[in-house]
Amino acid sequence: MAPVKEHQEISIQIPKTDKPRVVIIGGGFAGLRIIKKLEKENLQVIMLDRHNYHTFQPLLYQVATAGLEPGSIAGPLRQVMEEKEDFHFRMAKVTRINHEKKTVSTPLGELSYDYLIIACGTKTNYFGNDDKFKEALPLKQLPHALNLRSHILQNFEKAVNTSDPEELKSLMNVVVVGGGPTGVEVSGALGELKNHVLPKDYPELDFRQMKIYLVEGLPHLLNGMSKTASKKANKYLKDFDVNIKLNAMVDSYDGKEVKLSTGEVLNSQTLIWAAGVKGNTIPGLPEECVKKSQYLVDEFNQVQGVKDVFAVGDVALMETRKTPKGYPMLAPVAIQQGENLAENLLRIIRGEKNLQPFRFFNKGSMATVGRNRAVVDMPNGLSFGGFAAWTTWMFVHLLYLIGFRNKLVVFNNWVWNYFTYDRGIRLIIRPFDKEEKIKQQESEQ
Amino acid sequence: MAPVKEHQEISIQIPKTDKPRVVIIGGGFAGLRIIKKLEKENLQVIMLDRHNYHTFQPLLYQVATAGLEPGSIAGPLRQVMEEKEDFHFRMAKVTRINHEKKTVSTPLGELSYDYLIIACGTKTNYFGNDDKFKEALPLKQLPHALNLRSHILQNFEKAVNTSDPEELKSLMNVVVVGGGPTGVEVSGALGELKNHVLPKDYPELDFRQMKIYLVEGLPHLLNGMSKTASKKANKYLKDFDVNIKLNAMVDSYDGKEVKLSTGEVLNSQTLIWAAGVKGNTIPGLPEECVKKSQYLVDEFNQVQGVKDVFAVGDVALMETRKTPKGYPMLAPVAIQQGENLAENLLRIIRGEKNLQPFRFFNKGSMATVGRNRAVVDMPNGLSFGGFAAWTTWMFVHLLYLIGFRNKLVVFNNWVWNYFTYDRGIRLIIRPFDKEEKIKQQESEQ
Repeated sequence: MAPVKEHQEISIQIPKTDKPRVVIIGGGFAGLRIIKKLEKENLQVIMLDRHNYHTFQPLLYQVATAGLEPGSIAGPLRQVMEEKEDFHFRMAKVTRINHEKKTVSTPLGELSYDYLIIACGTKTNYFGNDDKFKEALPLKQLPHALNLRSHILQNFEKAVNTSDPEELKSLMNVVVVGGGPTGVEVSGALGELKNHVLPKDYPELDFRQMKIYLVEGLPHLLNGMSKTASKKANKYLKDFDVNIKLNAMVDSYDGKEVKLSTGEVLNSQTLIWAAGVKGNTIPGLPEECVKKSQYLVDEFNQVQGVKDVFAVGDVALMETRKTPKGYPMLAPVAIQQGENLAENLLRIIRGEKNLQPFRFFNKGSMATVGRNRAVVDMPNGLSFGGFAAWTTWMFVHLLYLIGFRNKLVVFNNWVWNYFTYDRGIRLIIRPFDKEEKIKQQESEQ
Repeated sequence: MAPVKEHQEISIQIPKTDKPRVVIIGGGFAGLRIIKKLEKENLQVIMLDRHNYHTFQPLLYQVATAGLEPGSIAGPLRQVMEEKEDFHFRMAKVTRINHEKKTVSTPLGELSYDYLIIACGTKTNYFGNDDKFKEALPLKQLPHALNLRSHILQNFEKAVNTSDPEELKSLMNVVVVGGGPTGVEVSGALGELKNHVLPKDYPELDFRQMKIYLVEGLPHLLNGMSKTASKKANKYLKDFDVNIKLNAMVDSYDGKEVKLSTGEVLNSQTLIWAAGVKGNTIPGLPEECVKKSQYLVDEFNQVQGVKDVFAVGDVALMETRKTPKGYPMLAPVAIQQGENLAENLLRIIRGEKNLQPFRFFNKGSMATVGRNRAVVDMPNGLSFGGFAAWTTWMFVHLLYLIGFRNKLVVFNNWVWNYFTYDRGIRLIIRPFDKEEKIKQQESEQ
């Protein structure tokens, strides 16, 4: 019987029942919210994800900077499906959608659907320059965060044994590209490492020599947030010794020298790429439903021109009169679209016509820089910063973390890190080999 | 200046002072105790370790079975050296000892010593059959534990999509080789996963089909502990559905079939090797100081026939009238030898002659099987089991864990796991590729 498994057209073994089958690709914010809304309905629901866990991406940067363990911001997806009748999970990457046959292809086999929800988020966007920036380190998945943690610590281990002053600088310096929330947050966290943690670990090194650069193409940080927030973030980052380069793009990076569009050259063996993401589209759907790596959807998240296929969250582009460029790629949009889509799907299945168009309820936006320093924009237009914003940021992040265990573990870690100025997880558990990563990356493309 | 670094004979850049220089290889139990004893002395102390962290090996099996995160049982070695004058750490594997020149070689360069302490513990022992058991999974280091966690979970992800009943069994079954504390503890933890965690995650699978085997060559488990402890462990393991095969050796393993010396064949794609360890000796010392991969030492832990070189803990073989086969490879021996050696070293440096021979103070031994079930042998010959032994085991392990943060995190996890019957860290963060591991293993030899 074993040879059968090698056969290309084998199906994923989930018995088809007489219930409608909903297949969800991706266990991110949108996918999880849909599961929650559908759990008591008379449906067969199958979730596919290439990982067996949900990643709480807003805290990835804290894993990268030794503040949290990976398991604290990840939750097993099978746990989400537990005790729900006819809900199934398969760890598989969807390689193709066949909308005419109504199936998806995965390395485990094919799977048919009655309704398909594409919720597979984004991946790092090098804006067509993947080859040029292959030495850059992305920060989109847990392994990326662990690689970054190892890489930075390995560089310091090398630095203590380096006499060449240029080499030393390039080992200690870090360049972050992209002044959005991720870029701001990771720069701030690196500033905290520089000020409070690393000098105790490496008394041999002169930390005045370590420079953290944050490079942003626009004239201000945190595009999409208020001017007040942007200005405050700027000031806070300076408090943490971050050098901000505005109106500057990265032209090239050879693994040691970062060339900026302004002509400036920064020495660093660590370039963190937080400059952009693009939708994680899957081959198979007609070209006309994809625009700039996102699926064009109507106000009901239906992919345009394809029956019974929906896209939701960051991978969906909903162009409306109010949002001609679509909604921002943010967790609240994904969660609210997931909720609305689940309700509409139930209406469709019941044959009802009263579908509700998506309306975004803006709850505000925020970014943290470091201890006691964050910025919050409220939906009413008010902005505030400092300690109040920082505690708000923590509260909201704990609230949205999946699972009570993770909330507890993260909270404990934050309390510990706050009072001790410590980062207990500065461990090189799996040494990072950049050349190996570049090879792997090339094979994944 | 950069080319100089490629030169073979470059030295590790630590300025020689007029203080005696003590070089310690290995940040395990012995090494850490020595650091602690020497911290206020007028010495230059340099610790070398291939990892930047100490591993609390007694809890490795809980990382492998998704009960604890890796960072909870590891502590940064640089933190141990903090605020100690002229104490240095370098992350480097020692590749050779040159006792005539009084130097050690590492990939970072050479390092001279006045006194050398070898404390680099053990590695997995396949008893000369490394090739035969290359499909086996060791459990000696954190990456091993993470690989095992990924491997077991990946097998279950495969199992839900397998129709071949033989393949299904081999994916679900686990064989543990070696009935010492590690083997007993990992089998018990797997039994808990089987009974409480995995059936909820994989409702598609029939867990009565999953078999956990513990294979031991001797007629009893926990050799070195009392008969009472051995019998109790036997009973407890059966409570957790572990199948114990005594008087049985593993003859061969091809990745799917485990052939026992009794003629029995067990189907399993997971063979955990807990059958033995051997000293991690380093090339360079005369052959006559090494016996069965351990350094022959006198009662002062001096390596026989080599001046100013000491070996301590698992890598040392101290044959005395009372211990003709040496001391057991246990943490308490390593800790006490480290303490005694540090005191003797200070006497030697001061020119005193009153060296104290090592005397082992037996504080008892213990092993845990699972919730509420452990066995303890007291030094006075008394034995006890059950809940009292289990709480004793936890208390002692928390006590010996390095660092207050780790104690707190592990304690919280245990409380959580106990009351929820949960293992929140069942994540495949880095998928494990056995073939890749075999290749890597071969290149490391």
